[in-house]
Amino acid sequence: MPLAFEILATSGQARRGRLLTPHGAVETPAFMPVGTLGAVKGVTPQELEAAGASILLANLYHLALRPGIDAVERLGGLHAFTGWRGPLLTDSGGFQVWSLGGLRTLDADGVTFRSHLDGSPLRFTPEGVVSFQERMGVDIAMMLDECTLWPVEPAAAAASWERTLGWARRARAAWRGTAGGLFGIVQGSVYRELRERAVAELSELDFDGYAIGGVAVGEPEADRRAVVEWTAPALPRERPRYLMGVGYPEDIVHAVAQGVDLFDCVLPSRNARHGVLFTRAGALKIRNARYREDPRPLDPQCGCPACRRTSRAFLHHLSRAGELTAAVLGTLHNLRFYLDFMAGLRQAIQLGALTEAASLARRATGEDPPEDADSDVLPVSSDPLEQRSS
Amino acid sequence: MPLAFEILATSGQARRGRLLTPHGAVETPAFMPVGTLGAVKGVTPQELEAAGASILLANLYHLALRPGIDAVERLGGLHAFTGWRGPLLTDSGGFQVWSLGGLRTLDADGVTFRSHLDGSPLRFTPEGVVSFQERMGVDIAMMLDECTLWPVEPAAAAASWERTLGWARRARAAWRGTAGGLFGIVQGSVYRELRERAVAELSELDFDGYAIGGVAVGEPEADRRAVVEWTAPALPRERPRYLMGVGYPEDIVHAVAQGVDLFDCVLPSRNARHGVLFTRAGALKIRNARYREDPRPLDPQCGCPACRRTSRAFLHHLSRAGELTAAVLGTLHNLRFYLDFMAGLRQAIQLGALTEAASLARRATGEDPPEDADSDVLPVSSDPLEQRSS
Repeated sequence: MPLAFEILATSGQARRGRLLTPHGAVETPAFMPVGTLGAVKGVTPQELEAAGASILLANLYHLALRPGIDAVERLGGLHAFTGWRGPLLTDSGGFQVWSLGGLRTLDADGVTFRSHLDGSPLRFTPEGVVSFQERMGVDIAMMLDECTLWPVEPAAAAASWERTLGWARRARAAWRGTAGGLFGIVQGSVYRELRERAVAELSELDFDGYAIGGVAVGEPEADRRAVVEWTAPALPRERPRYLMGVGYPEDIVHAVAQGVDLFDCVLPSRNARHGVLFTRAGALKIRNARYREDPRPLDPQCGCPACRRTSRAFLHHLSRAGELTAAVLGTLHNLRFYLDFMAGLRQAIQLGALTEAASLARRATGEDPPEDADSDVLPVSSDPLEQRSS
Repeated sequence: MPLAFEILATSGQARRGRLLTPHGAVETPAFMPVGTLGAVKGVTPQELEAAGASILLANLYHLALRPGIDAVERLGGLHAFTGWRGPLLTDSGGFQVWSLGGLRTLDADGVTFRSHLDGSPLRFTPEGVVSFQERMGVDIAMMLDECTLWPVEPAAAAASWERTLGWARRARAAWRGTAGGLFGIVQGSVYRELRERAVAELSELDFDGYAIGGVAVGEPEADRRAVVEWTAPALPRERPRYLMGVGYPEDIVHAVAQGVDLFDCVLPSRNARHGVLFTRAGALKIRNARYREDPRPLDPQCGCPACRRTSRAFLHHLSRAGELTAAVLGTLHNLRFYLDFMAGLRQAIQLGALTEAASLARRATGEDPPEDADSDVLPVSSDPLEQRSS
């Protein structure tokens, strides 16, 4: 079955949609947790489901290196391999080839690079990358693109887009469309004319969805937002739109307001491992001394295993000690925060009140709120009946 | 409420019992997962419950250093602090003081040492350690002992026992007995006469339970087993018996047959982090190449999140890559294996068939079974109905 996308409600340019995939529905706007090697770091598939994730992102580049596409195929595909039963999206590896690969050679036909693990040679072509993803049985495949890093000169960005457009045509032609869908990727760096041209040229190819790439690669926030404003509303209305690698809650609200439907980012999981935990009152640096004896849950409105059972003081203690459980509980919390946040945005669109949601995003991003910003938060309850959890 | 212990069935010297604590019942023989800092490494309290743990062990030594007993008390005690709602046992710190502390000075009254974290001085006395544990509200407190390491000369072992016996008397006198219970600890190294004397002298003090300490400190297996055989059956019949720091499933079966009721060990969690996973067919070194494309679950009889959803191939992949999720899934598996194993022993005692259980223990301990030992294990099922899990 191919992808199907329906728009259930709108609020301004924001869309409340539903993406039907071979492995289930994704209510949009949606956040895709990042499981580079097939699992979010420290999280079981079951816990990811319990947190409310409906779609998982994995990285083709890393999987192609280890265990290899052949192995994944022999093991029954990426769903059977990872134990994740919902929709799966794999990126095309373009970003990793450009950002990680020191030894790559680019030609008109594709890119050859060396494994960062053992130096063995690998080759990605537009057709090969489509085939890799089809063989793994993913629900959403991404075309191979050249991800221009930032900064890049206008002429180089334009030449890069020409190559990516050629690869887009070849990927589209190679896609057999038996199951799931193939997304095209808009590039063009921070140049408006180039981005607009890329949107128009890519849209002609009738992909199953469209991604905005080449952002969150170091450019200023104003540039990133401008790119979203130029591109998202201009992409085909009836197809899902995916902003790659973004980001903070505020960036997500902004992009949702421009009509973006899908997001992925390592922020919730990576920040959790570094002790930065998002809450409705602000982002807590849990290792700060002020949390040493704070008996309250991270966020009293959160239903994650950490908030249902433990306190800031305990997370502070585990995080200071470098305990694995700090990373696990923190990641479960941050993912739940992001997934709840997206559910809030979906509801806001349905109620036509997206702007109110933006204020929550601003608050959640501010680090370590004033001491009294959450002074009305009660200590974690010791009443078992109030705390039944996953 | 004080501890209560009842023996429900016996098989030879083995006992099937029930230990009632202020935070719930523990069916014995029982294995206590080790949560040094208040949590098993990589495991949430909820997952620990789901694995079937009924009692958790934490380390007084580590908690005294960080966050400190005062902080735990101010935060409402160890249960409120950690989010673990079932029975809690803390060790007395004796073993850690002796095995970790480079800078310790011993006197008749107690021991002074320096924190391995910041060098700050701490002092443990028999009365202080009892008070620490009472203030944290644990269900089972352990007396301060001098843990003789191995090897030790007979005269030194005897002198050490004299000191520990004096501390036992002082701890017993200091224990107020308002909630939970205090366990005494038998020492005496590998010397039969000394062990037997220690059992007799300690039993006179009428502790709520008795531990066998000073084993699993490097001595040969035959010595360890002999110590258990000399001491366990001679301890007061009507009190729970706890073999500290042991061990492999085979050691546990042996000790259960000698009438031991409680166990703790870091083996299941530590081995999991190193990629050694216990199964009914043998212990798998999951990083071995033979598991690279093995589509089967670790152990088809196991209900842990790893076995219900993922394959040996996926765990191999994550473990080779050093992913946190490998440690998490492996620990959940090994703990479940141990807890299921104890449930099997309890049933075996009830059925009067403990000796049969020993053969399983022998198998589970053998590393990397012959290639065909588990050839009848089917690949991990892809039928969702068969795999509903925690």
